[in-house]
Amino acid sequence: MSKEIIAEITNKNYQKISENIQSFLAKQLQDTSSEGLIFGLSGGIDSAVVAYLCQREMKSKVTALIMPDTKISPKSETEDALKMIDKLGMDYKLIDISLIVNEYSKYLEPNEKAKGNLRARIRANLLYYYANSKNYLVVGTSDKSEYLLGYFTKFGDGSADIQPIISLYKLQVRKLAEFLGVPDSIIAKKSGPHLLKDHFAEDEIGVAYEEIDPILYCLIDKKLTIQETSTKTGIPIQTVEKIHSLYKISEHKRITAPKPT
Amino acid sequence: MSKEIIAEITNKNYQKISENIQSFLAKQLQDTSSEGLIFGLSGGIDSAVVAYLCQREMKSKVTALIMPDTKISPKSETEDALKMIDKLGMDYKLIDISLIVNEYSKYLEPNEKAKGNLRARIRANLLYYYANSKNYLVVGTSDKSEYLLGYFTKFGDGSADIQPIISLYKLQVRKLAEFLGVPDSIIAKKSGPHLLKDHFAEDEIGVAYEEIDPILYCLIDKKLTIQETSTKTGIPIQTVEKIHSLYKISEHKRITAPKPT
Repeated sequence: MSKEIIAEITNKNYQKISENIQSFLAKQLQDTSSEGLIFGLSGGIDSAVVAYLCQREMKSKVTALIMPDTKISPKSETEDALKMIDKLGMDYKLIDISLIVNEYSKYLEPNEKAKGNLRARIRANLLYYYANSKNYLVVGTSDKSEYLLGYFTKFGDGSADIQPIISLYKLQVRKLAEFLGVPDSIIAKKSGPHLLKDHFAEDEIGVAYEEIDPILYCLIDKKLTIQETSTKTGIPIQTVEKIHSLYKISEHKRITAPKPT
Repeated sequence: MSKEIIAEITNKNYQKISENIQSFLAKQLQDTSSEGLIFGLSGGIDSAVVAYLCQREMKSKVTALIMPDTKISPKSETEDALKMIDKLGMDYKLIDISLIVNEYSKYLEPNEKAKGNLRARIRANLLYYYANSKNYLVVGTSDKSEYLLGYFTKFGDGSADIQPIISLYKLQVRKLAEFLGVPDSIIAKKSGPHLLKDHFAEDEIGVAYEEIDPILYCLIDKKLTIQETSTKTGIPIQTVEKIHSLYKISEHKRITAPKPT
Protein backbone atom coordinates (compact mmCIF):
# COMPACT_ATOMS: atom_id res chain seq x y z
CA MET A 1 0.00 0.00 0.00
CA SER A 2 2.95 2.23 0.77
CA LYS A 3 3.84 2.10 -2.94
CA GLU A 4 0.64 3.83 -3.98
CA ILE A 5 1.23 6.57 -1.46
CA ILE A 6 4.81 6.99 -2.59
CA ALA A 7 3.45 7.40 -6.12
CA GLU A 8 0.96 9.98 -4.84
CA ILE A 9 3.80 11.88 -3.16
CA THR A 10 6.29 11.72 -6.01
CA ASN A 11 4.16 11.99 -9.17
CA LYS A 12 4.64 15.72 -9.64
CA ASN A 13 5.61 18.06 -12.42
CA TYR A 14 9.24 18.69 -11.48
CA GLN A 15 9.77 21.19 -14.23
CA LYS A 16 7.01 23.30 -12.75
CA ILE A 17 8.39 22.84 -9.24
CA SER A 18 11.83 23.91 -10.41
CA GLU A 19 10.45 27.00 -12.15
CA ASN A 20 8.40 27.87 -9.09
CA ILE A 21 11.46 27.69 -6.83
CA GLN A 22 13.50 29.74 -9.27
CA SER A 23 10.83 32.47 -9.29
CA PHE A 24 10.82 32.34 -5.51
CA LEU A 25 14.60 32.88 -5.41
CA ALA A 26 14.32 35.81 -7.82
CA LYS A 27 11.50 37.40 -5.85
CA GLN A 28 13.28 37.02 -2.51
CA LEU A 29 16.42 38.64 -3.89
CA GLN A 30 14.37 41.54 -5.17
CA ASP A 31 12.18 41.95 -2.07
CA THR A 32 15.18 42.03 0.26
CA SER A 33 17.46 44.05 -2.07
CA SER A 34 20.07 41.33 -1.64
CA GLU A 35 22.85 40.90 -4.12
CA GLY A 36 23.34 37.18 -4.22
CA LEU A 37 22.84 33.75 -2.71
CA ILE A 38 25.06 31.67 -0.45
CA PHE A 39 24.62 28.18 0.96
CA GLY A 40 26.56 25.28 2.41
CA LEU A 41 27.37 22.52 -0.07
CA SER A 42 27.98 19.23 1.69
CA GLY A 43 28.10 16.64 -1.08
CA GLY A 44 24.61 15.42 -0.11
CA ILE A 45 21.47 15.54 -2.20
CA ASP A 46 19.66 18.49 -0.56
CA SER A 47 22.44 21.02 -0.99
CA ALA A 48 23.14 19.62 -4.47
CA VAL A 49 19.56 20.38 -5.49
CA VAL A 50 19.84 23.87 -4.00
CA ALA A 51 23.10 24.43 -5.92
CA TYR A 52 21.49 23.39 -9.21
CA LEU A 53 18.41 25.56 -8.61
CA CYS A 54 20.47 28.64 -7.70
CA GLN A 55 22.67 28.09 -10.74
CA ARG A 56 19.64 27.78 -13.03
CA GLU A 57 18.26 31.06 -11.73
CA MET A 58 21.44 33.12 -11.89
CA LYS A 59 24.80 32.43 -13.40
CA SER A 60 26.79 34.70 -11.12
CA LYS A 61 26.45 35.96 -7.54
CA VAL A 62 25.95 32.48 -6.18
CA THR A 63 28.53 31.20 -3.70
CA ALA A 64 28.79 27.70 -2.24
CA LEU A 65 30.70 27.15 0.98
CA ILE A 66 32.17 23.67 1.38
CA MET A 67 32.93 23.28 5.08
CA PRO A 68 34.19 19.83 6.03
CA ASP A 69 35.62 19.03 9.42
CA THR A 70 38.50 17.04 7.96
CA LYS A 71 38.81 15.12 11.24
CA ILE A 72 35.43 13.43 10.69
CA SER A 73 33.83 14.38 7.36
CA PRO A 74 34.24 11.68 4.69
CA LYS A 75 36.73 12.84 2.05
CA SER A 76 34.38 11.45 -0.60
CA GLU A 77 31.71 14.01 0.40
CA THR A 78 34.04 16.94 -0.17
CA GLU A 79 35.15 15.40 -3.47
CA ASP A 80 31.51 15.07 -4.55
CA ALA A 81 30.90 18.71 -3.63
CA LEU A 82 33.96 19.85 -5.60
CA LYS A 83 32.93 17.78 -8.63
CA MET A 84 29.56 19.57 -8.66
CA ILE A 85 31.24 22.96 -8.37
CA ASP A 86 33.40 22.03 -11.31
CA LYS A 87 30.41 20.88 -13.35
CA LEU A 88 28.35 23.98 -12.53
CA GLY A 89 31.25 26.42 -12.77
CA MET A 90 30.11 27.93 -9.50
CA ASP A 91 31.93 30.33 -7.20
CA TYR A 92 32.95 28.58 -3.97
CA LYS A 93 35.14 28.61 -0.88
CA LEU A 94 36.51 25.53 0.84
CA ILE A 95 37.01 25.96 4.60
CA ASP A 96 38.15 23.15 6.86
CA ILE A 97 36.38 23.87 10.17
CA SER A 98 38.44 21.40 12.21
CA LEU A 99 40.70 24.04 13.78
CA ILE A 100 37.71 26.21 14.68
CA VAL A 101 36.04 23.20 16.34
CA ASN A 102 39.32 22.60 18.10
CA GLU A 103 39.52 26.14 19.43
CA TYR A 104 36.01 25.85 20.95
CA SER A 105 36.90 22.49 22.45
CA LYS A 106 39.61 24.09 24.58
CA TYR A 107 36.85 25.75 26.61
CA LEU A 108 34.31 22.94 26.69
CA GLU A 109 33.89 19.60 28.38
CA PRO A 110 33.89 16.77 25.83
CA ASN A 111 30.42 15.80 24.59
CA GLU A 112 30.23 14.16 21.19
CA LYS A 113 26.59 15.02 20.50
CA ALA A 114 26.98 18.67 21.47
CA LYS A 115 30.14 18.80 19.35
CA GLY A 116 28.23 17.44 16.36
CA ASN A 117 25.67 20.22 16.71
CA LEU A 118 28.47 22.74 17.22
CA ARG A 119 29.83 21.79 13.78
CA ALA A 120 26.48 22.65 12.17
CA ARG A 121 26.41 25.96 14.07
CA ILE A 122 29.94 26.92 13.08
CA ARG A 123 28.90 26.37 9.45
CA ALA A 124 25.92 28.69 9.94
CA ASN A 125 28.28 31.32 11.44
CA LEU A 126 30.53 31.15 8.39
CA LEU A 127 27.60 31.40 5.97
CA TYR A 128 26.22 34.42 7.83
CA TYR A 129 29.63 36.08 7.97
CA TYR A 130 29.86 35.92 4.19
CA ALA A 131 26.20 36.86 3.77
CA ASN A 132 26.68 39.91 6.03
CA SER A 133 29.83 40.95 4.18
CA LYS A 134 28.44 40.55 0.68
CA ASN A 135 24.77 41.40 1.28
CA TYR A 136 23.79 37.88 0.20
CA LEU A 137 20.87 35.75 1.39
CA VAL A 138 21.63 32.50 3.23
CA VAL A 139 19.75 29.78 1.39
CA GLY A 140 18.64 26.88 3.58
CA THR A 141 18.89 23.31 2.35
CA SER A 142 16.38 21.60 4.65
CA ASP A 143 13.82 19.29 3.10
CA LYS A 144 10.33 18.66 4.48
CA SER A 145 11.16 15.20 5.88
CA GLU A 146 14.09 16.46 7.95
CA TYR A 147 12.19 19.56 8.95
CA LEU A 148 9.15 17.69 10.25
CA LEU A 149 11.30 15.09 12.04
CA GLY A 150 13.40 17.84 13.61
CA TYR A 151 16.37 16.11 12.01
CA PHE A 152 18.49 19.24 11.88
CA THR A 153 20.47 21.37 14.33
CA LYS A 154 18.50 24.21 15.91
CA PHE A 155 20.30 27.46 14.99
CA GLY A 156 22.73 25.38 12.93
CA ASP A 157 21.72 24.04 9.52
CA GLY A 158 18.22 25.16 10.48
CA SER A 159 19.41 28.80 10.19
CA ALA A 160 18.66 30.43 6.87
CA ASP A 161 17.04 33.50 5.35
CA ILE A 162 14.99 31.52 2.84
CA GLN A 163 14.04 27.86 2.53
CA PRO A 164 13.49 26.90 -1.12
CA ILE A 165 13.07 23.11 -0.77
CA ILE A 166 11.47 22.87 2.67
CA SER A 167 8.09 22.00 1.15
CA LEU A 168 9.50 18.92 -0.58
CA TYR A 169 9.77 15.49 1.01
CA LYS A 170 13.09 13.65 0.59
CA LEU A 171 11.54 11.33 -2.02
CA GLN A 172 10.43 14.41 -3.97
CA VAL A 173 13.87 15.97 -3.63
CA ARG A 174 15.31 12.81 -5.20
CA LYS A 175 12.96 13.17 -8.18
CA LEU A 176 13.73 16.86 -8.50
CA ALA A 177 17.44 16.00 -8.41
CA GLU A 178 16.93 13.59 -11.32
CA PHE A 179 15.08 16.26 -13.26
CA LEU A 180 17.84 18.81 -12.63
CA GLY A 181 20.58 16.43 -13.71
CA VAL A 182 22.28 15.98 -10.34
CA PRO A 183 24.77 13.08 -10.71
CA ASP A 184 23.24 9.65 -9.98
CA SER A 185 25.95 8.86 -7.45
CA ILE A 186 24.75 11.77 -5.29
CA ILE A 187 21.10 10.79 -5.61
CA ALA A 188 21.76 7.14 -4.86
CA LYS A 189 24.10 7.40 -1.88
CA LYS A 190 22.97 7.06 1.74
CA SER A 191 22.19 10.52 3.04
CA GLY A 192 23.57 11.73 6.34
CA PRO A 193 24.38 14.92 8.20
CA HIS A 194 27.96 13.75 8.95
CA LEU A 195 28.04 15.78 12.15
CA LEU A 196 29.70 12.76 13.72
CA LYS A 197 31.80 10.00 12.21
CA ASP A 198 29.82 7.59 9.94
CA HIS A 199 26.65 9.55 10.57
CA PHE A 200 23.77 8.46 8.33
CA ALA A 201 20.19 9.66 8.59
CA GLU A 202 18.27 6.43 8.05
CA ASP A 203 20.57 4.52 10.42
CA GLU A 204 20.09 7.11 13.17
CA ILE A 205 16.34 7.42 12.69
CA GLY A 206 16.03 3.67 12.17
CA VAL A 207 13.48 4.03 9.36
CA ALA A 208 13.98 4.43 5.59
CA TYR A 209 12.65 7.49 3.74
CA GLU A 210 10.39 5.13 1.75
CA GLU A 211 8.51 4.71 5.04
CA ILE A 212 9.20 8.08 6.69
CA ASP A 213 7.68 10.11 3.85
CA PRO A 214 4.41 8.16 3.48
CA ILE A 215 3.99 8.29 7.26
CA LEU A 216 4.58 12.06 7.49
CA TYR A 217 2.40 12.63 4.44
CA CYS A 218 -0.52 10.77 6.04
CA LEU A 219 -0.03 12.25 9.52
CA ILE A 220 0.67 15.86 8.57
CA ASP A 221 -0.75 16.55 5.10
CA LYS A 222 -3.73 14.18 5.30
CA LYS A 223 -4.20 14.68 9.06
CA LEU A 224 -4.80 10.96 9.63
CA THR A 225 -4.48 9.36 13.07
CA ILE A 226 -1.59 7.05 13.91
CA GLN A 227 -3.85 4.01 13.47
CA GLU A 228 -5.26 5.27 10.15
CA THR A 229 -1.74 6.02 8.91
CA SER A 230 -0.60 2.52 9.75
CA THR A 231 -3.61 0.99 7.99
CA LYS A 232 -3.31 3.23 4.95
CA THR A 233 0.44 2.70 4.49
CA GLY A 234 0.69 -0.89 5.66
CA ILE A 235 3.58 0.17 7.89
CA PRO A 236 3.67 -1.30 11.46
CA ILE A 237 2.08 0.98 14.05
CA GLN A 238 5.29 1.02 16.14
CA THR A 239 7.11 2.67 13.23
CA VAL A 240 4.32 5.21 12.75
CA GLU A 241 4.41 5.96 16.48
CA LYS A 242 8.15 6.48 16.36
CA ILE A 243 7.90 8.99 13.50
CA HIS A 244 4.96 10.71 15.18
CA SER A 245 6.96 11.03 18.37
CA LEU A 246 9.97 12.53 16.54
CA TYR A 247 7.60 15.06 14.99
CA LYS A 248 6.08 15.95 18.33
CA ILE A 249 9.25 16.30 20.41
CA SER A 250 10.91 18.49 17.77
CA GLU A 251 8.11 21.06 17.68
CA HIS A 252 10.28 23.56 19.59
CA LYS A 253 12.63 23.64 16.58
CA ARG A 254 9.88 24.82 14.26
CA ILE A 255 8.29 27.57 16.34
CA THR A 256 9.28 30.99 17.62
CA ALA A 257 10.66 30.75 21.16
CA PRO A 258 7.78 30.77 23.70
CA LYS A 259 7.24 33.83 25.88
CA PRO A 260 5.06 34.48 28.94
CA THR A 261 1.41 35.18 28.14
CA MET B 1 2.90 64.33 25.82
CA SER B 2 5.52 61.60 25.65
CA LYS B 3 5.62 61.65 29.45
CA GLU B 4 2.02 60.52 29.75
CA ILE B 5 2.65 57.68 27.35
CA ILE B 6 5.79 56.67 29.22
CA ALA B 7 3.66 56.56 32.37
CA GLU B 8 1.08 54.43 30.54
CA ILE B 9 3.85 52.03 29.46
CA THR B 10 5.66 51.82 32.78
CA ASN B 11 2.90 51.98 35.41
CA LYS B 12 2.61 48.23 35.91
CA ASN B 13 2.56 45.81 38.79
CA TYR B 14 6.14 44.53 38.62
CA GLN B 15 5.65 42.02 41.38
CA LYS B 16 2.92 40.40 39.30
CA ILE B 17 5.07 40.56 36.16
CA SER B 18 7.94 38.93 38.03
CA GLU B 19 5.72 36.16 39.36
CA ASN B 20 4.24 35.59 35.93
CA ILE B 21 7.69 35.21 34.36
CA GLN B 22 8.79 32.86 37.14
CA SER B 23 5.74 30.66 36.55
CA PHE B 24 6.54 30.72 32.86
CA LEU B 25 10.10 29.51 33.54
CA ALA B 26 8.84 26.73 35.79
CA LYS B 27 6.25 25.60 33.25
CA GLN B 28 8.73 25.62 30.36
CA LEU B 29 11.18 23.49 32.34
CA GLN B 30 8.45 21.04 33.12
CA ASP B 31 6.91 20.94 29.63
CA THR B 32 10.27 20.31 27.97
CA SER B 33 11.63 17.99 30.68
CA SER B 34 14.69 20.19 30.88
CA GLU B 35 16.95 20.16 33.90
CA GLY B 36 18.03 23.76 34.16
CA LEU B 37 18.46 27.18 32.63
CA ILE B 38 21.44 28.81 30.94
CA PHE B 39 21.93 32.29 29.53
CA GLY B 40 24.61 34.77 28.58
CA LEU B 41 25.34 37.40 31.22
CA SER B 42 26.86 40.52 29.70
CA GLY B 43 26.84 43.07 32.48
CA GLY B 44 23.91 44.85 30.84
CA ILE B 45 20.41 45.32 32.19
CA ASP B 46 18.51 42.71 30.13
CA SER B 47 20.65 39.76 31.10
CA ALA B 48 20.83 41.08 34.69
CA VAL B 49 17.05 40.97 34.91
CA VAL B 50 17.02 37.46 33.45
CA ALA B 51 19.64 36.38 36.00
CA TYR B 52 17.57 37.72 38.90
CA LEU B 53 14.37 36.12 37.61
CA CYS B 54 16.01 32.72 37.09
CA GLN B 55 17.57 32.92 40.55
CA ARG B 56 14.22 33.78 42.16
CA GLU B 57 12.61 30.79 40.52
CA MET B 58 15.27 28.19 41.31
CA LYS B 59 18.30 28.32 43.54
CA SER B 60 20.33 25.71 41.67
CA LYS B 61 20.53 24.46 38.08
CA VAL B 62 20.96 27.96 36.71
CA THR B 63 24.18 28.71 34.85
CA ALA B 64 25.33 32.09 33.55
CA LEU B 65 27.96 32.25 30.81
CA ILE B 66 30.06 35.41 30.79
CA MET B 67 31.64 35.59 27.35
CA PRO B 68 33.64 38.75 26.75
CA ASP B 69 35.89 39.23 23.77
CA THR B 70 38.69 40.71 25.83
CA LYS B 71 40.00 42.48 22.73
CA ILE B 72 36.94 44.74 22.57
CA SER B 73 34.53 44.16 25.50
CA PRO B 74 34.82 46.78 28.24
CA LYS B 75 36.46 45.26 31.31
CA SER B 76 33.87 47.07 33.45
CA GLU B 77 31.07 45.01 31.83
CA THR B 78 32.69 41.73 32.85
CA GLU B 79 33.32 43.11 36.33
CA ASP B 80 29.65 44.09 36.63
CA ALA B 81 28.63 40.60 35.53
CA LEU B 82 30.96 38.99 38.07
CA LYS B 83 29.66 41.24 40.85
CA MET B 84 26.13 40.08 40.14
CA ILE B 85 27.21 36.44 40.14
CA ASP B 86 28.83 37.03 43.51
CA LYS B 87 25.71 38.71 44.88
CA LEU B 88 23.37 36.00 43.59
CA GLY B 89 25.69 33.09 44.39
CA MET B 90 25.02 31.76 40.92
CA ASP B 91 26.85 29.04 39.02
CA TYR B 92 28.83 30.53 36.10
CA LYS B 93 31.59 30.06 33.54
CA LEU B 94 33.79 32.83 32.21
CA ILE B 95 34.99 32.25 28.63
CA ASP B 96 37.06 34.78 26.71
CA ILE B 97 35.93 34.31 23.10
CA SER B 98 38.77 36.34 21.57
CA LEU B 99 40.81 33.32 20.47
CA ILE B 100 37.75 31.69 18.93
CA VAL B 101 37.00 34.90 17.01
CA ASN B 102 40.64 34.90 15.98
CA GLU B 103 40.49 31.34 14.66
CA TYR B 104 37.47 32.17 12.45
CA SER B 105 39.22 35.32 11.22
CA LYS B 106 41.99 33.24 9.68
CA TYR B 107 39.50 32.04 7.09
CA LEU B 108 37.56 35.26 6.53
CA GLU B 109 38.11 38.59 4.85
CA PRO B 110 38.05 41.43 7.39
CA ASN B 111 34.64 43.03 7.88
CA GLU B 112 34.02 44.73 11.20
CA LYS B 113 30.22 44.55 11.10
CA ALA B 114 30.16 40.87 10.15
CA LYS B 115 32.73 40.22 12.88
CA GLY B 116 30.49 41.94 15.43
CA ASN B 117 27.62 39.67 14.50
CA LEU B 118 29.98 36.68 14.54
CA ARG B 119 30.73 37.44 18.20
CA ALA B 120 27.02 37.19 19.05
CA ARG B 121 26.78 33.92 17.11
CA ILE B 122 29.82 32.39 18.82
CA ARG B 123 28.14 33.17 22.15
CA ALA B 124 24.97 31.40 20.99
CA ASN B 125 27.09 28.37 19.98
CA LEU B 126 28.65 28.20 23.44
CA LEU B 127 25.28 28.52 25.17
CA TYR B 128 23.84 25.74 23.02
CA TYR B 129 26.85 23.51 23.57
CA TYR B 130 26.28 23.70 27.32
CA ALA B 131 22.51 23.43 26.93
CA ASN B 132 22.91 20.30 24.76
CA SER B 133 25.39 18.75 27.22
CA LYS B 134 23.38 19.45 30.36
CA ASN B 135 19.83 19.25 28.98
CA TYR B 136 19.28 22.89 29.89
CA LEU B 137 17.10 25.49 28.17
CA VAL B 138 18.77 28.50 26.60
CA VAL B 139 17.05 31.56 28.05
CA GLY B 140 16.94 34.56 25.73
CA THR B 141 17.55 38.05 27.06
CA SER B 142 15.92 40.13 24.31
CA ASP B 143 13.52 42.88 25.33
CA LYS B 144 10.58 44.10 23.26
CA SER B 145 12.27 47.34 22.15
CA GLU B 146 15.30 45.54 20.70
CA TYR B 147 13.15 42.80 19.26
CA LEU B 148 10.82 45.16 17.39
CA LEU B 149 13.71 47.30 16.14
CA GLY B 150 15.59 44.19 15.01
CA TYR B 151 18.41 45.40 17.24
CA PHE B 152 19.88 41.94 17.73
CA THR B 153 21.92 39.47 15.71
CA LYS B 154 19.87 36.98 13.69
CA PHE B 155 20.85 33.49 14.90
CA GLY B 156 23.12 35.16 17.47
CA ASP B 157 21.66 36.69 20.62
CA GLY B 158 18.29 36.19 18.91
CA SER B 159 18.74 32.41 19.39
CA ALA B 160 17.04 31.00 22.45
CA ASP B 161 14.63 28.29 23.54
CA ILE B 162 12.48 30.65 25.60
CA GLN B 163 12.13 34.43 25.76
CA PRO B 164 10.99 35.53 29.24
CA ILE B 165 11.32 39.32 28.87
CA ILE B 166 10.55 39.77 25.18
CA SER B 167 7.14 41.24 25.98
CA LEU B 168 8.67 44.07 28.02
CA TYR B 169 9.86 47.36 26.59
CA LYS B 170 13.27 48.61 27.73
CA LEU B 171 11.63 51.21 30.01
CA GLN B 172 9.61 48.41 31.62
CA VAL B 173 12.74 46.26 31.98
CA ARG B 174 14.32 49.16 33.89
CA LYS B 175 11.36 49.26 36.29
CA LEU B 176 11.40 45.50 36.70
CA ALA B 177 15.14 45.70 37.40
CA GLU B 178 14.46 48.22 40.20
CA PHE B 179 11.80 45.94 41.66
CA LEU B 180 14.16 42.93 41.56
CA GLY B 181 16.99 44.81 43.26
CA VAL B 182 19.40 44.91 40.33
CA PRO B 183 22.23 47.33 41.28
CA ASP B 184 21.50 50.94 40.31
CA SER B 185 24.78 51.22 38.43
CA ILE B 186 23.58 48.54 35.99
CA ILE B 187 20.17 50.15 35.56
CA ALA B 188 21.61 53.61 35.02
CA LYS B 189 24.44 52.90 32.61
CA LYS B 190 24.16 53.37 28.86
CA SER B 191 23.11 50.07 27.35
CA GLY B 192 24.90 48.57 24.40
CA PRO B 193 25.51 45.24 22.66
CA HIS B 194 29.32 45.76 22.71
CA LEU B 195 29.73 43.69 19.56
CA LEU B 196 32.18 46.38 18.45
CA LYS B 197 34.36 48.74 20.44
CA ASP B 198 32.40 51.50 22.28
CA HIS B 199 29.14 50.10 20.93
CA PHE B 200 26.08 51.71 22.53
CA ALA B 201 22.48 51.16 21.51
CA GLU B 202 21.08 54.68 21.68
CA ASP B 203 24.14 56.13 19.90
CA GLU B 204 23.81 53.62 17.06
CA ILE B 205 20.04 53.98 16.73
CA GLY B 206 20.28 57.73 17.24
CA VAL B 207 17.17 57.87 19.44
CA ALA B 208 16.77 57.47 23.23
CA TYR B 209 14.57 54.72 24.69
CA GLU B 210 12.39 57.46 26.20
CA GLU B 211 11.36 58.14 22.60
CA ILE B 212 11.79 54.67 21.06
CA ASP B 213 9.38 52.99 23.47
CA PRO B 214 6.50 55.49 23.18
CA ILE B 215 6.84 55.36 19.39
CA LEU B 216 6.82 51.55 19.23
CA TYR B 217 3.98 51.41 21.75
CA CYS B 218 1.82 53.73 19.60
CA LEU B 219 2.77 52.10 16.28
CA ILE B 220 2.62 48.46 17.28
CA ASP B 221 0.41 48.09 20.36
CA LYS B 222 -1.99 50.93 19.59
CA LYS B 223 -1.74 50.46 15.81
CA LEU B 224 -1.56 54.21 15.21
CA THR B 225 -0.26 55.65 11.94
CA ILE B 226 3.10 57.42 11.75
CA GLN B 227 1.35 60.81 11.77
CA GLU B 228 -0.91 59.88 14.69
CA THR B 229 2.09 58.55 16.63
CA SER B 230 3.97 61.79 16.11
CA THR B 231 0.98 63.85 17.23
CA LYS B 232 0.23 61.66 20.23
CA THR B 233 3.84 61.51 21.47
CA GLY B 234 4.94 65.00 20.44
CA ILE B 235 8.02 63.42 18.84
CA PRO B 236 9.10 64.76 15.41
CA ILE B 237 7.73 62.75 12.49
CA GLN B 238 11.24 62.11 11.14
CA THR B 239 12.10 60.23 14.33
CA VAL B 240 8.87 58.23 14.15
CA GLU B 241 9.60 57.40 10.51
CA LYS B 242 13.09 56.23 11.42
CA ILE B 243 11.80 53.86 14.11
CA HIS B 244 9.03 52.65 11.82
CA SER B 245 11.57 51.93 9.11
CA LEU B 246 13.82 49.96 11.50
CA TYR B 247 10.78 47.92 12.49
CA LYS B 248 9.85 47.22 8.87
CA ILE B 249 13.27 46.30 7.50
CA SER B 250 13.94 43.91 10.39
CA GLU B 251 10.79 41.87 9.85
CA HIS B 252 12.85 38.98 8.39
CA LYS B 253 14.46 38.55 11.82
CA ARG B 254 11.11 37.90 13.49
CA ILE B 255 9.54 35.44 11.08
CA THR B 256 10.18 31.88 9.97
CA ALA B 257 12.29 31.81 6.80
CA PRO B 258 10.06 32.25 3.71
CA LYS B 259 9.47 29.27 1.40
CA PRO B 260 7.90 28.96 -2.06
CA THR B 261 4.11 28.91 -2.08
